[in-house]
Amino acid sequence: MAAAVVPNKKVVLKNHITGFPKETDMEIVTSDTIRLKVPEGSTALIVKNLFLSCDPYMRSRMSKNDDPSYVPDFIPGSVITGFGVSKVVDSGHPDYSAGDLVWGLTGWEEYSLLTNPEVLFKIKYTDVPLSYYTGLLGMAGLTAYAGFYEVCAPKKGEYVFVSAASGAVGQLVGQFAKLMGCYVVGSAGSDEKVNLLKNKFGFDEAFNYKKESDLNAALKRCFPEGIDIYFENVGGAMLDAVLRNMRIHGRIAACGMISQYNLEKGEGVHNLTYTIKKRIRFEGFLVFDYFHKYNEFVEKIIPDIREGKIAYVEDIAEGLENAPAALIGLFKGLNVGKQLVVVAHE
Amino acid sequence: MAAAVVPNKKVVLKNHITGFPKETDMEIVTSDTIRLKVPEGSTALIVKNLFLSCDPYMRSRMSKNDDPSYVPDFIPGSVITGFGVSKVVDSGHPDYSAGDLVWGLTGWEEYSLLTNPEVLFKIKYTDVPLSYYTGLLGMAGLTAYAGFYEVCAPKKGEYVFVSAASGAVGQLVGQFAKLMGCYVVGSAGSDEKVNLLKNKFGFDEAFNYKKESDLNAALKRCFPEGIDIYFENVGGAMLDAVLRNMRIHGRIAACGMISQYNLEKGEGVHNLTYTIKKRIRFEGFLVFDYFHKYNEFVEKIIPDIREGKIAYVEDIAEGLENAPAALIGLFKGLNVGKQLVVVAHE
Repeated sequence: MAAAVVPNKKVVLKNHITGFPKETDMEIVTSDTIRLKVPEGSTALIVKNLFLSCDPYMRSRMSKNDDPSYVPDFIPGSVITGFGVSKVVDSGHPDYSAGDLVWGLTGWEEYSLLTNPEVLFKIKYTDVPLSYYTGLLGMAGLTAYAGFYEVCAPKKGEYVFVSAASGAVGQLVGQFAKLMGCYVVGSAGSDEKVNLLKNKFGFDEAFNYKKESDLNAALKRCFPEGIDIYFENVGGAMLDAVLRNMRIHGRIAACGMISQYNLEKGEGVHNLTYTIKKRIRFEGFLVFDYFHKYNEFVEKIIPDIREGKIAYVEDIAEGLENAPAALIGLFKGLNVGKQLVVVAHE
Repeated sequence: MAAAVVPNKKVVLKNHITGFPKETDMEIVTSDTIRLKVPEGSTALIVKNLFLSCDPYMRSRMSKNDDPSYVPDFIPGSVITGFGVSKVVDSGHPDYSAGDLVWGLTGWEEYSLLTNPEVLFKIKYTDVPLSYYTGLLGMAGLTAYAGFYEVCAPKKGEYVFVSAASGAVGQLVGQFAKLMGCYVVGSAGSDEKVNLLKNKFGFDEAFNYKKESDLNAALKRCFPEGIDIYFENVGGAMLDAVLRNMRIHGRIAACGMISQYNLEKGEGVHNLTYTIKKRIRFEGFLVFDYFHKYNEFVEKIIPDIREGKIAYVEDIAEGLENAPAALIGLFKGLNVGKQLVVVAHE
């Protein structure tokens, strides 16, 4: 039987960019087609993409980077890639069969030919929403898990601060910290998000950084005793204020610095001398170094999700056409919760 | 027998300062006297001060600090305190007798009444110059030892960069790294110091940062493969350049940031996003947390000193009158090697 050849809509980066990204830096290409069968003798997969994840780290890939990075830059004229949830349509790989659900790196398109299936994760539990594998049960979840438990080395009763706290990673870090018996404060960029932090995710305190004229004063108000752990998602002025408020032997896990990604030159951080007198450990990390912990993480968190001990908020854009706006919205802070795009409902 | 009462010359801070310190911020007071006997029933010591150590951390103590620090601010009108080598003249403490040699916190004066002898270290080996206990065998040595072996977690063959490399701590860190089989580069602020690094301390390479118009280019020249370990003594622009040149999973031990101490506001560090993509651990530390390692350190290094495996350069000022200039010279980079002051030759 001849394999079907179908249209394959995709999102393409037009050119490498500098500064703040715009929707028009990307375009929707509808003229391509794909054959829904892997080439003879190949170990590739053909997948149908269901959900795509919008993540801050993608900003770096939209630029031309001189320094080699952990992920390659996007190629102008080619499809954007990122994490997503997909269903196997055809498999040349012994570990996968048609119908399998997977998450991992895929294309921002309806169907993808994935030539390196070894880096995908098979989805084991389907009694939770499949979209969760773009975040809570995917990269964001593992990021929060590894960043908090491994990098922050938390102890019960410690004072924890999370920036961008209602985002995909932040909301989980805060909840992990609460489950451990820490005091947790989050910052976010709207009153709606602050409300979520306090009333949905169980943070002890939260503030809207856009309404605080003095971040140092805001932190002193929330942490009269100082901060033991800072889960860093934003960088810049917030980091400077946090450094002034850290306790002795505090730890900062640097997960992201979204406030800096669209600047030509990073904002200056002026208070690093505090790392010495307070003996602070500041450690950058990438989830890519922790993929071997994924199964451990899933087995640990699935019961918490089923029992309702972990709340999770998604911001869902419908349709590949809306993917560029969803990604740009992330950098503007328009999303409330984990931003994802639905390409197809199975 | 009535105890002698003798004149006691001392160095006093006149007022708390901001900006760059000057010799005239201190004064020599000659009008005081001291009774060379501890008060009845006290566990204090009277010591005769032999050598005083000039250390960068003392700059912070010359200012009025809002944030509580690990060492108290100097008190205007009172004697300056710091690390030194002293001889016990009279003891009320069971662990000490007249004639014992000690190092630890003392006053910048001829004789001191030390009310807390528990924090002093008794000097065990006297076949090496006693002045070494202000540096190599004192705080600077332990700083280099703990900072390099504990905080940097070095491995044979790694690429190590040390700033302020001819200073008391830097010269030792570089030699420890060479003994471990690392490739070591140092920066310093004069050609004389660069010459010392290469020809006395055995650094593989060294450069005069004042002659480099582009620190990033200088580091790329010395480290074409990048830097695994940075022993940070200066902060500011050098740190920014280093961040761009770190290798994946690199470590930065922040020991000091002498370029920042005399600024009203710290210079901005712009390249912290590299800590994430390169997974860099940046850790501030203080020697005060490692005093329990002192005996281990001394036993390890004494044979190396005796066998000539460790070179050591001191910059010696003669007489308490010259102590203020020696301290100010440290912030100007005038010292070549460990800066100390001789108060008395036993």
